[in-house]
Amino acid sequence: MEIITTRELKERLGELQGQTVTLQGWIRNHRKQKNIGFIDFFDGTCFKNPQVVYDDGIANYEGIQAFHIGSAVKVTGKVVPSYKDPETPEIQAQEITLEGDCPEDYPLQPKKHSLEFLREIAYLRPRTRLFQAVFRVRSVAAMAIHTYFQDRGYVYVHTPLITGNDAEGAGNTFTVTTLPPSDHPDYSQDFFGKPTSLAVTGQLEGETFAMAFSKIYTFGPTFRAENSNTKTHAAEFWMIEPEIAFCDLDQLMDIEEDFLKNLVQTVLDKCPDELEFLDKFTGGGLIEKLTALAGSTCARVTHEEAITILRKAMENGTQFQFEPKYGEDTAKEHEKYLTEEYFHSPVFVYNWPKDIKAFYMYQNEDQKTVAAVDLLVPGAGELMGGSQREDRYDRLAARMDELGISKDEMYWYVNLRKFGGCTHAGFGMGFERLLIYLTGVENIRDVIPYFRTPMNCDF
Amino acid sequence: MEIITTRELKERLGELQGQTVTLQGWIRNHRKQKNIGFIDFFDGTCFKNPQVVYDDGIANYEGIQAFHIGSAVKVTGKVVPSYKDPETPEIQAQEITLEGDCPEDYPLQPKKHSLEFLREIAYLRPRTRLFQAVFRVRSVAAMAIHTYFQDRGYVYVHTPLITGNDAEGAGNTFTVTTLPPSDHPDYSQDFFGKPTSLAVTGQLEGETFAMAFSKIYTFGPTFRAENSNTKTHAAEFWMIEPEIAFCDLDQLMDIEEDFLKNLVQTVLDKCPDELEFLDKFTGGGLIEKLTALAGSTCARVTHEEAITILRKAMENGTQFQFEPKYGEDTAKEHEKYLTEEYFHSPVFVYNWPKDIKAFYMYQNEDQKTVAAVDLLVPGAGELMGGSQREDRYDRLAARMDELGISKDEMYWYVNLRKFGGCTHAGFGMGFERLLIYLTGVENIRDVIPYFRTPMNCDF
Repeated sequence: MEIITTRELKERLGELQGQTVTLQGWIRNHRKQKNIGFIDFFDGTCFKNPQVVYDDGIANYEGIQAFHIGSAVKVTGKVVPSYKDPETPEIQAQEITLEGDCPEDYPLQPKKHSLEFLREIAYLRPRTRLFQAVFRVRSVAAMAIHTYFQDRGYVYVHTPLITGNDAEGAGNTFTVTTLPPSDHPDYSQDFFGKPTSLAVTGQLEGETFAMAFSKIYTFGPTFRAENSNTKTHAAEFWMIEPEIAFCDLDQLMDIEEDFLKNLVQTVLDKCPDELEFLDKFTGGGLIEKLTALAGSTCARVTHEEAITILRKAMENGTQFQFEPKYGEDTAKEHEKYLTEEYFHSPVFVYNWPKDIKAFYMYQNEDQKTVAAVDLLVPGAGELMGGSQREDRYDRLAARMDELGISKDEMYWYVNLRKFGGCTHAGFGMGFERLLIYLTGVENIRDVIPYFRTPMNCDF
Repeated sequence: MEIITTRELKERLGELQGQTVTLQGWIRNHRKQKNIGFIDFFDGTCFKNPQVVYDDGIANYEGIQAFHIGSAVKVTGKVVPSYKDPETPEIQAQEITLEGDCPEDYPLQPKKHSLEFLREIAYLRPRTRLFQAVFRVRSVAAMAIHTYFQDRGYVYVHTPLITGNDAEGAGNTFTVTTLPPSDHPDYSQDFFGKPTSLAVTGQLEGETFAMAFSKIYTFGPTFRAENSNTKTHAAEFWMIEPEIAFCDLDQLMDIEEDFLKNLVQTVLDKCPDELEFLDKFTGGGLIEKLTALAGSTCARVTHEEAITILRKAMENGTQFQFEPKYGEDTAKEHEKYLTEEYFHSPVFVYNWPKDIKAFYMYQNEDQKTVAAVDLLVPGAGELMGGSQREDRYDRLAARMDELGISKDEMYWYVNLRKFGGCTHAGFGMGFERLLIYLTGVENIRDVIPYFRTPMNCDF
């Protein structure tokens, strides 16, 4: 008698029909009639779960009828066709044994729980159908990212998390220390002999590897001590930061577009059941949105062109809360208009005003803009941010001086421009922002196993 | 004229023979004769690099002869067979242009640099052959780990890095804070409203997901503020922690063995050129060692049996610095004897004395040991540590009380034993320890892009 997972059961369903198998998992729901019982069974390896049916001919019938929701059980039975769904197998149980009991006051009952309540029991929520879908999509998307880059010869680089740099200039960073509390800490006695913090990006170190391997990517945690209690901010999140040598802004947009479409298509292919559930859960339109994206062509406009489009729209009666202005950042409502009303597709907005972008971006000849690009996606807003990097030593040095960023501290970054520098570019994508888009779930707290936000560091 | 990478050149060498291609990369070495010049060219996408040959018929011959080592160049030329190695292509250059210059005092010259010196220029060392090999093996091994688990239905889980738990009991952890320095910090005003630190393990959170998905794995950074300046300790490193429901200690050993052998075989298959170089660099025997491991069967002995073997060896004249004792930990020399002298294979040592192991391990019926297992590997020592977890509520609670670990703080972990608990097990593997084994490179500082050790947090 073979012990198998529900995933194997689904994959080998034809072959296993009529066979006796053993499954191990948990009771999600348990309905009892006079002479028969039905167990919604899951083991988490597959989203489509078998129903276990037992009748009063089974040994310990009354004992089994008393099994609580949440209990771990071992089920042996015959695989038979299900009357309700040919893809969902049914198990006619010959034996059901209790592996681990669960009390009646188990917090996860078969009823609708609010997302807020589920956050409070984040250690149990992965057992719900919603979070089985969300966290499998998370895992599949992570793998799709690795596969995409590895198949194309990128080297995966683990950039450091503890850093002595304040890389992107003044940042909201977490201090990392082993010193005891003191009014006057002596950082020379700290673990690293100097003040250190948690990294807000791996890009700068990523560039050093791109100058050796041509194509690299990072995929790791990132930290921001930003006191924002919004649906899209977390203090700890995962980021993907590819960096490509001999790549300019146009080529970067090609890569971003191909990467995103490939990623979405992979999740559509690998998680049909999960997405079907999430589509219903989030009110419909999810699969349609993702399918459209996978088949779309991204528009490309400069920031100036985008502002012109937005100002014309305003003149023609579109109401914006914030006036779109040349030389200034765009607001969420502007991004929404561009993607959903004007282009009906993702949009690359490039050549941004240099004063609102980072020091390391390539300075365009107009003296006003840098070769930065944001990818705006219908229903998601900004999903990726990238740029061609300033590879001219003098220009970079001048910009750092202007902004008061120390070239001495960052000598290794600056030196990349002296030691065989070349045109190069890269982008960053917040993994959770992608997942919000892929799952249709709106709050970042619901796509991270254990979220960290201001005043919240539970589990 | 096609721009390709050296990886594409190698993969499509047959088809490209006689064709004109363009490559972009860097000059590793440059030798000049009267009417001809030779450039060792690399772009990092492939370990085997083409040689670029140019003669005085080329435009700007004298300018090209002046190109320095380290410069970025664009080379267009005809692919021709190499006289020295049929697998290494040669490019007969028609045009070579300078993309980015490099000064003559470039620190990486074509001579032997010490590993210590290369650590000081860690931002340049990935350009050397040694680190091209090491960091590609790192990337390939990381992907092999993801592939292994994903192919077998495991869900990849990102456990939190910032934590309010001191999970494994008293640990050397880094404090994470946003408070200004103070003798009397008010943690209620800290970012999370309480004291927080960097996680030393993701296992406990991993278990919560194993109780929902049956098979999960983590792969993320881990932090230890241990003041150890050894070859194998770093303050920041990456860990893999799979956790499997309905799995006992025997089954865990099966998984560990299959995983390790699969991993080693994948790296042997995917990095032959890198391993050949590393084999020579580390004095020979590396490929032989890895091939032997991939084909070996791991021995399995209890801790008690292991001590008996060691004590007999001692009686028969083997010299140990530390006496092997029942009920006590083993030393490196003991591990070496077991794997290299006695079994000539990897060895699982299981059923360890409970007093030297963690609180969450399954308590055996003998009252003295726990169902823990260390995998010892010839030439590497302990590579994985795992255990069946204590899934009996009363036993776990009693052990936590004995050790003074708060059940209130860890209520969610303890509750897993109440809410449908089951036999489950997992292991942890330090990624860098694996890489030391795979590359033959001895120092953990040389298998991490930017290492963090006491008093060192550069770049």
